[in-house]
Amino acid sequence: MTASTRQLPREDIGRGRVEALSDGVFAIVVTLLVLEIKVPHVEAHDSLTELARALLALAPKFISWVISFVTVCVIWLNHHRAFALMRRVDNGLFWWNANLLLWTSFIPFPTAVMGDYPHNTVAVSFYGAVMFLMALAFVLLRWHLHRHPDVVGEQVDRAALRRGTMYSIIVGPVAYAAGAALAWVSAALAFVCYAAIALYFVFPTGSRLRE
Amino acid sequence: MTASTRQLPREDIGRGRVEALSDGVFAIVVTLLVLEIKVPHVEAHDSLTELARALLALAPKFISWVISFVTVCVIWLNHHRAFALMRRVDNGLFWWNANLLLWTSFIPFPTAVMGDYPHNTVAVSFYGAVMFLMALAFVLLRWHLHRHPDVVGEQVDRAALRRGTMYSIIVGPVAYAAGAALAWVSAALAFVCYAAIALYFVFPTGSRLRE
Amino acid sequence: MTASTRQLPREDIGRGRVEALSDGVFAIVVTLLVLEIKVPHVEAHDSLTELARALLALAPKFISWVISFVTVCVIWLNHHRAFALMRRVDNGLFWWNANLLLWTSFIPFPTAVMGDYPHNTVAVSFYGAVMFLMALAFVLLRWHLHRHPDVVGEQVDRAALRRGTMYSIIVGPVAYAAGAALAWVSAALAFVCYAAIALYFVFPTGSRLRE
Amino acid sequence: MTASTRQLPREDIGRGRVEALSDGVFAIVVTLLVLEIKVPHVEAHDSLTELARALLALAPKFISWVISFVTVCVIWLNHHRAFALMRRVDNGLFWWNANLLLWTSFIPFPTAVMGDYPHNTVAVSFYGAVMFLMALAFVLLRWHLHRHPDVVGEQVDRAALRRGTMYSIIVGPVAYAAGAALAWVSAALAFVCYAAIALYFVFPTGSRLRE
Repeated sequence: MTASTRQLPREDIGRGRVEALSDGVFAIVVTLLVLEIKVPHVEAHDSLTELARALLALAPKFISWVISFVTVCVIWLNHHRAFALMRRVDNGLFWWNANLLLWTSFIPFPTAVMGDYPHNTVAVSFYGAVMFLMALAFVLLRWHLHRHPDVVGEQVDRAALRRGTMYSIIVGPVAYAAGAALAWVSAALAFVCYAAIALYFVFPTGSRLRE
Repeated sequence: MTASTRQLPREDIGRGRVEALSDGVFAIVVTLLVLEIKVPHVEAHDSLTELARALLALAPKFISWVISFVTVCVIWLNHHRAFALMRRVDNGLFWWNANLLLWTSFIPFPTAVMGDYPHNTVAVSFYGAVMFLMALAFVLLRWHLHRHPDVVGEQVDRAALRRGTMYSIIVGPVAYAAGAALAWVSAALAFVCYAAIALYFVFPTGSRLRE
Repeated sequence: MTASTRQLPREDIGRGRVEALSDGVFAIVVTLLVLEIKVPHVEAHDSLTELARALLALAPKFISWVISFVTVCVIWLNHHRAFALMRRVDNGLFWWNANLLLWTSFIPFPTAVMGDYPHNTVAVSFYGAVMFLMALAFVLLRWHLHRHPDVVGEQVDRAALRRGTMYSIIVGPVAYAAGAALAWVSAALAFVCYAAIALYFVFPTGSRLRE
Repeated sequence: MTASTRQLPREDIGRGRVEALSDGVFAIVVTLLVLEIKVPHVEAHDSLTELARALLALAPKFISWVISFVTVCVIWLNHHRAFALMRRVDNGLFWWNANLLLWTSFIPFPTAVMGDYPHNTVAVSFYGAVMFLMALAFVLLRWHLHRHPDVVGEQVDRAALRRGTMYSIIVGPVAYAAGAALAWVSAALAFVCYAAIALYFVFPTGSRLRE
């Protein structure tokens, strides 16, 4: 990294340090999610049933946390795949990446809102709206790659990149918009939808189809 | 890292970045643990005895924190050893690793619960249950290595790997299940059990026997 | 990194590890910013209008957060550019960098103060004052580079470095001092000023002019 | 790193990953310190004097934060220098390093206690006691280096290492014990003492003498 950084054209940014910044943000987001689950306050300190009940009452917080945790891992995985294609990081790419990090770093907030108000349509569709903006940020980042062939390496199949970008609109922003809309029918259905989008990428078929 | 990342087969993930993500999570978890110890509120701001008493009353928080700190260091050490065996990271391994990170990043919560309710059996066995799931995640990760010889390097002794995996079931999930069960006899005994599991790995005999 | 670290003169510090420390701080600051946005408390848990209104009331927090997020990304970018010029890190540079990290790591606090008291001149100019000190730290770091030609590589144009340092006084401390002063005329104008300073660096013209 | 990690003897741990874990902890600690400074609550949201007074009342928090920030930077610097001497990381060194990280990651807590109770001798000497344990951890780590010549590289002057270890007892644990004792005479004097210990290492004379 050291040597190559110095030989960069003036407008270029070291890919290694952009990856390090992004990985730092992903690692912190994934770990901060738990901070939003507060230790329940139980009056009778030694009451087993009260504490057990208080912990069970946190179930919506736990479910929101797991969905967001898996989602951030998926973001990491797709980020890793997108960056593996790159030869250099230009100013535009840096900021499309920063836009993705902005929405990713915001995830703990809608996760906490949804965990605190699991039956409130506003909370559940707010979560979907933030995820929509995060997924849109990913599409824009991929679009930038597609528009700037000099950023990606020569070995990259540009037609496949274009198809992948198109495809990522459907399994990304469109799917999250559908989830946010579903919340107005049933909050539980929206939870299932958000979990399904994340799980889709966990299994290799999903990620293989997408690339 | 830069060069090798680009030459990865499409389904593979850069080992360096997975380690960086994992190290980030371990470093953050180990440091966040302290955030769960809140500054005590003392009415008489200048009273030495009141503040001293309030700090002493935090003893169960301090003990829980130290046990979890050492445990996360042990996780890091075992993670390091497991990853040193690997030649590549496939999709399955990424997600078994993510499962391990999920439970590891959750540790601040049961630590805070146990620190706040040190005499409540539910709190103390809840801690053991989470650690059981973390240790199980480790067994599953090692099992994946054993099942996919192409993931580990050729120089790795597969019989030793299998023995190590079997062994890790006993000093991992079984030991934590025993600790969680002990909590129903005596909370103090469970604390000792959790500390003993961590200390077992601190001394080289433990880690040498295990590998 | 490993090899080169060992061959450093005794008073020198590995550039790679200073960058790693700085990147860690930037990644954490950028992510912690969201922690200052607390989940609103709504009495009627299922009331859509109440929760929607409570989320809308957080608008000043969201705006402060986005301005600070973009600002920290700009700090990262300028930091990256400054470090790309360096051949070695001496003791002085380490501490001028630490001074920059001090003010950068402080940003979540004035961001939260400004987000909580968006109409209070003290809060809004306090934000500008902290940013002034952060920008001043950058000027001092660049000044150190200019004064110690042995720290920067030989290929660096020292006249351009000097011009860049002078220029960074205007778009840095002077601009933030102006923003903090503007707050006494109108808080909204100061918000616009802080956002404009950050946006100036987002577009390549800004960063190109500056270097 | 990748290649060398695989060739490590079984009991050895990759120096690069131990440094990464440590750097992660240092970066997080240094940034978390600010989280302990809470936004003051002011009844009259638009009152300039009330908010200004509330911010000024935080002065002891700001001073504690700056002292701890500089101290963690000094820890990083000394850690960097100690690790630059090493050829390998054995099990013992890993745990002496973990002990150092334990006390370093604890720093936000005594910093917050001292910032909240700046006139309370218990709070101010508690800070010194934690710093004493942190500095002792450093002496023990250096002592391990001295006792295990195979851990340090061959080019290291062992007599100088021994002298440095002895010296670090005085400017480390002894100095902090003195500070903690001074708190019983005057809290302000102890603040000055803690700041002086940190500043001693900022200027090159200190670090040069020590090595």
